[in-house]
Formats: sequence, structure tokens, C-alpha cells
Amino acid sequence: MERQIIKIGLLGLGTVGRGVFRILQENRESIQQRIGARLEIKKILVRSLAKDRGIELPAGILTTDLNEITGDPEIKIVVEVLGGTNPTLDYVLAALSNGKSVVTANKDMVAEYGQVLFETAKKYNCDLLFEASVAGGIPIIRTLKQSLAGNRIEEVFGIINGTTNYMLTKMTREGSDFAQVLAEAQAKGYAEADPTADVGGFDAARKIAILASIAFNTRVPLSKVHTEGITGITADDITFANELGYVIKLLGIAKNRPDGIEVRVHPTFIPKHHPLAAVGDVFNAVFVRGNAVGDTMFYGKGAGELPTASAVVADIMDAARDIMQGVPGFIGCTCFDHKPVLDIGETFSKYYIRLKVADKPGVLASVALIFGNKEVSLKSVIQKGATGKTAELVLITHKVQEQNVQDALMDLKQLSSVLEVANVIRVEGEDNGHA
Amino acid sequence: MERQIIKIGLLGLGTVGRGVFRILQENRESIQQRIGARLEIKKILVRSLAKDRGIELPAGILTTDLNEITGDPEIKIVVEVLGGTNPTLDYVLAALSNGKSVVTANKDMVAEYGQVLFETAKKYNCDLLFEASVAGGIPIIRTLKQSLAGNRIEEVFGIINGTTNYMLTKMTREGSDFAQVLAEAQAKGYAEADPTADVGGFDAARKIAILASIAFNTRVPLSKVHTEGITGITADDITFANELGYVIKLLGIAKNRPDGIEVRVHPTFIPKHHPLAAVGDVFNAVFVRGNAVGDTMFYGKGAGELPTASAVVADIMDAARDIMQGVPGFIGCTCFDHKPVLDIGETFSKYYIRLKVADKPGVLASVALIFGNKEVSLKSVIQKGATGKTAELVLITHKVQEQNVQDALMDLKQLSSVLEVANVIRVEGEDNGHA
Repeated sequence: MERQIIKIGLLGLGTVGRGVFRILQENRESIQQRIGARLEIKKILVRSLAKDRGIELPAGILTTDLNEITGDPEIKIVVEVLGGTNPTLDYVLAALSNGKSVVTANKDMVAEYGQVLFETAKKYNCDLLFEASVAGGIPIIRTLKQSLAGNRIEEVFGIINGTTNYMLTKMTREGSDFAQVLAEAQAKGYAEADPTADVGGFDAARKIAILASIAFNTRVPLSKVHTEGITGITADDITFANELGYVIKLLGIAKNRPDGIEVRVHPTFIPKHHPLAAVGDVFNAVFVRGNAVGDTMFYGKGAGELPTASAVVADIMDAARDIMQGVPGFIGCTCFDHKPVLDIGETFSKYYIRLKVADKPGVLASVALIFGNKEVSLKSVIQKGATGKTAELVLITHKVQEQNVQDALMDLKQLSSVLEVANVIRVEGEDNGHA
Repeated sequence: MERQIIKIGLLGLGTVGRGVFRILQENRESIQQRIGARLEIKKILVRSLAKDRGIELPAGILTTDLNEITGDPEIKIVVEVLGGTNPTLDYVLAALSNGKSVVTANKDMVAEYGQVLFETAKKYNCDLLFEASVAGGIPIIRTLKQSLAGNRIEEVFGIINGTTNYMLTKMTREGSDFAQVLAEAQAKGYAEADPTADVGGFDAARKIAILASIAFNTRVPLSKVHTEGITGITADDITFANELGYVIKLLGIAKNRPDGIEVRVHPTFIPKHHPLAAVGDVFNAVFVRGNAVGDTMFYGKGAGELPTASAVVADIMDAARDIMQGVPGFIGCTCFDHKPVLDIGETFSKYYIRLKVADKPGVLASVALIFGNKEVSLKSVIQKGATGKTAELVLITHKVQEQNVQDALMDLKQLSSVLEVANVIRVEGEDNGHA
């Protein structure tokens, strides 16, 4: 086999960039044999030439000048691992406009600027690959685009943020509080000093927007993703979940309905026997239901230097194959549908609702009446922690429309015997019988 | 977008064939939009034109003459869902020799005749795709070939036979016996009248041979796959497993070692907290460890009309794309390594060993001495069910070489105080800390 050399420009040399460099070096032989070409990083764009990178680099490989990459006709593939959108978006558009295939790990950029990116890639006949942008090492993008392409995808939902899964796992195992677990996660480097993107659900929102776009062939604007984080989850909620046979996970959820699609991120009760329930610590997992394949799940590390770089390198290899065969842009954007993204009020779910109420006769009846008036039917009601003054009511509803639940909650808050709506958490994953 | 039509010939119209027909019909629109071409089944090879197929078929689509498919220049893709190897292999070679890309669901043919098949596909520049041959709807072949292609794969192991997983799940939940569960599985249609291929491990052996070939770039002859079935698993073994913190699963296991590869099928103790432990009933799951991505798992239905057809249709779509772009044979065979497959005696594992012994002083010492002499170190020893006459010794070893265990067992059988070696089951999946 002839040994072509395909040259690569790397934008950024942070954690993932170093991982890509290391994998291309360590697995060089097998990569070469698999694609029939040698992959060579020719230039790496960095902010500072002087900074110690902790790895041995060939002399002259670093540059601070983007044009040495986007303007070099020898470089066929540009790998973007800078993160952020400004100036990253401009850099990537410059690379595509110069006819270079782009591999990116950047969920923010893909989620926010997907349309202009894919249009530009198509215009210049380039690959734009982004497997690493969602769920790190788990090959979920290629799976949706190719392996399950014969299916009508009905649902995609999963654990797509490792930080919050680590925290919820720890809260579940140890009965500890949110604040305490957050401090520990920050000390371990699993959570950032400003944890908002993770604990607020915004990181997961970007990822589920990308997954929903691919699964349902419809571009999903980030602004349409209903997003709730885990900051309101208490040790009490976790205890009640456990007693009722559930665990609490932060899920990204996307569902395909005849009238539109649901896309949302929120803490979720899932049954203990559901395959996602066993996914602990920083692991990610994505559950996909297709009309032919049925239920599938994909599990692995959602972040980290090498898992993320594994996905980037697979994309580089695909881009290289496409270039060698003369077919860059082989599998392009598939947002040919334009289904509406439904408002959260239009979505359907079961609900766990925890109320603090006055501990006196008749309260349950008045609560039940309000739910009944709004057509929210209750599956179970448990009274807990009655003190003679206050008590807790823990309710699980049947599958109902969100708006009806919200309306009922508004009315409940008018009742003098309802002291507080302590929490409302949706219940998912009960539609089948996983072992 | 221009609407090309790509014509397909189907060999066989059994369960999977009907599934392929149905998916191509039901998901026609989205498939067409995804690949930019219409897929059309032109001819279907069957044995009898008269048989009722339970689906509506266009007039004249059935044929009993292979040449109407392999000899038709309009037909670009041949889909083989006949099963078996004779005459199927000849049919497929005829299709490839006529320049047609082939999609097959046939694990027997791929495992036994991979070499001639891939050489022929390469010679005639055709795709030969076989996602459906292993683990039905789970996209494990494409994952290994593309998504994890940047990794050195270290281990692949999984539950790749649904029948035995259903049986072991039932034995575990209900404490029932092998024979009883087999009868039930046969009544439900999960096990065949002659269940040997499943319960003897031979079906799983074909699949792990295929997975190992791809993961380690080395053709694995079926004859080199050490194969043990589940017929020897008793309710006692399952009870002991449970007490010790394990479940018993029939696993296909492939490991990449510097000196060669291990490929084997056998009942296995895995820790209850391992992700594979929760995979119940007829579900399949494949666990893959790569040097970059770490641990990943892929879960779904391993058999059935539509899950298997889902994989077949994804392959058809890939073959169609390759034909449209003029690059059939895009991703070919990657058996460029020639690593030796190690004999079972050279493999390493932990072992669960259950002995029936005379219930008298000194037996444990003499048993332990024999293991020590063969350098088999014991992690735990539990004595059970002492009656005054007999007792059971349940031992778990540390990781040791198989040959040493076999040698020790030979010596043990010479001891008059050892009445029976009741069972020996390998223990896997303890090298990491899954939640």
C-alpha cells in the first residue's frame, strides 16, 4: 500500500490537544495501517510559544499565526480543540473556506453556530466532524448518523455531564448534601471554580441540542432547550427516590412526536432497574430508542484528555479517508426536517412532587382535588415526617402534560395548608422492562 | 438533490429478510433524504414462489434463479439473509465477482470464510459489510472499525448470545435449574429445538472470533476459540456466585497481549457492580477497553427481525453512499496483523472452583497444598454444607495461568478426600471500579 502523508493543523494545545498529539504518536503504526496513510501534525496554533506544554514537541511546530495553518495548502485537516466560540468560530470558518476538513470537539460552537458551520462546510466541500463534542469517547454521533440511520429515532436520552453524575452518585451513596459534594468535586478537579455550566445543566443542554438535531434531522436552537440543573436536589429527594425504587440523574432528553420534538435537561427519577441507573461517577451513557432497533445504550467516559482525543482521532481518520478517496464532505448535515421544538408546557411526563403541608385532617383531600381539577391523575401518595404541625406529602403522578402540572401547582400555592412546594422532578424510563 | 435509485437484490426472505423489506418501506422517506438516493429491492431469491410470506410483495419480485440477481447489472447491492454457508458462500462470492457490494447478517459465513470473502471483495472493489452478524442491532462492528479506530483495543468482551442470557437471567432470578429454564425458553421460542449452538457456546464463539479479528487486526480461526457452554451451570453455582458478589454470564472474551491474543467463550463470574451484570433477558452488550478511550459499553437487542434488520439497513445505506460517491470498498478488511491465538493453557484468569470433599480434618490443608505447589494462590476459601460425611469447598483464586489450574485439578482428583470437582468457572471484570 502506498504511504500517503496527510498533514494536520491543530488549533490549541490544551488537555484534549495534548491527547490528540499523544494518540497520533503512540498509535501511529496501527492508524497508518488502518487508513493507508500517515497522519502528521504540521503546525499547532497556540497563544504563547514559551509556555511549557509537558510534552516533547518537534522544533518549529508551534505558531501564533493562524495563517500558517489556514493558509498552508499542504494542511488538509484542521483540528479545533481551542474551545469557546470567539475567536474560534472565525478560525474554523477560515479553515473551511480554505477547503480544509475540520474536526472539532467544541459543543458550544456546534450547538450555537451549527447552521453557518455546516453551510460553509457544504459550500467548500469539506468534512465537518464533531464526534468529540458530545459524550467524549462514546461514539454517539457516528452511531446516530450511520449505524442507526435506517431507524426513525423515537427517543434519545442520557447522562451527558460527568460532573453532575459524579455529584449525584456521591449524594446517593453517601446521603450527603449538594453543597458538600460540590466542594469535594471542586477539590478533585471534577467541577470548576464556577460550576454553573455543569450544575445549572447548560453543558448538557448544548449536548442534547446537538443529539436532537442529528436524531430528528431538525436544527434545535439552544434557546428552545428547557434547562434545569441539580442545585435544588436535596438529600431528602434522594432518600425518597430510593424508597420509591428510583435514582436521580441529570438527563438530557429528546423525544420525537408527530407534532414536534421535546428537548429538555433536568434532574430525573429513573427506575433502579433501568440501564442508565447503574451508570455512576463521571461516566456518561446515552440511551437511544429506534423504531427498528428498539432500545440501545452507549456507555463510556464523557470527558478527559484521552477519551475525548479518541473521538477526535477517529474523526481525523474518517476525514483522512475521505480526502484520500476524493470524497470530502461524504456524510454531511442531515437537518432536512424542520419540526417545531415544543414548549415545556406541551411536554408529557410523570412527576414526583414533594409538598410541605400542615399536618391536619383534610389536607390530602384538598390537594388531591386541585390535581384532579387540572386532570393530573395521581399514581401514589405517601405522607412522611408528620410532626403534628407539619408533614410531607410525596406524590407520583401518571403521565400528564406539564402545563396541567404547572397550573395545579399555582393553585396549590394558594392553599393555606400547603406550606411549600419543596420539589418537582420528572420521572422517565418506565416505558419498558429492562432487567 | 438529484434522486438516484439504487437497486438491491435480496437473498432470502426469512425473519430478517422481511424486516429489511419492512424497514426500507416504512422508513423510505428519511432513508432517501439521508443518503440522497432511493433504495429499491428489485428481486428476492427464495426457494418457493408459492409460500405465503405474510407481507405484501410487488408482483414478480420473487425469483428462484440466483442469476436474476447476480447477473443483473442494474442490481448494485446484494443483501444476504439466507444463513448457513452452503450454498450461501457460493452465492455471495458470485455476487462479489459480479462487482456487487454485499451486506450480510451471516456470522457463520463471516467467521468461517472471512478470508476468501474479504479477498474477493477487495479484488472486485466491492463493499462487504456485516454489522448484523454480531450482536444484532448493536453497532459494534462499525464502532470498532471507525469510532474507536484511533485506539489500541486491549479487551473486547460481552454478552453476545441472547438465548443463554435469557436462561441465566431466569436461573438467577428464580433459582431454577438449567433443564427447566431450557424447556421454558424453547416454549417461548427463545431457544431452538436443538439448542446446542446456543447453550454449547458455539454461536457466541463465531461472534467473538469476528469481533477479535476486527479489534486486533488478526484473522482468528474458529478452531482456535476455546468454547464452553452453560450446560454445566447449576442452581448451586448461581447461589454461590450471588453470595460472593457475582453474577454468572456467558461471555465471549478477547484480550490483546504482547505475546498473542486470547479468544474464548465460557460462563463467567462478573462482579454485580460491573455494567454487564445488569444486562438481562435477551439483551446483548459488548464491553470494549481501548488504550485511549478507556472502558466503553454498547447495549441493545442481539437478535430479532427488526433489530437485526436495522443493522442490515445501515450497512445497505453505507454501501449505497459508497456506490454513489464512486468509492465502493471504502473501508476494507484490516487483518494486517498476524498475532498468534494463544492456547487456553496460556491464558490468565481468576477462578471459582467448587469441590465436593470428605468432611474430615486436614482436607483443606491438602487441597491448599496442591494449589500452592502449582503456584495457584487462593484469594478466598469457604466451606459449605458440611454433613459430617461430605462438604463443599468454594475457592476463588487470584489471577493465575490456566495451565497451572488444570495441573492442580489433575492432582486434586488423585486425592481420596476430593470426591468431585463440581465446577470451575473463570472470574472476569474486576480490573476496574465501575459503579
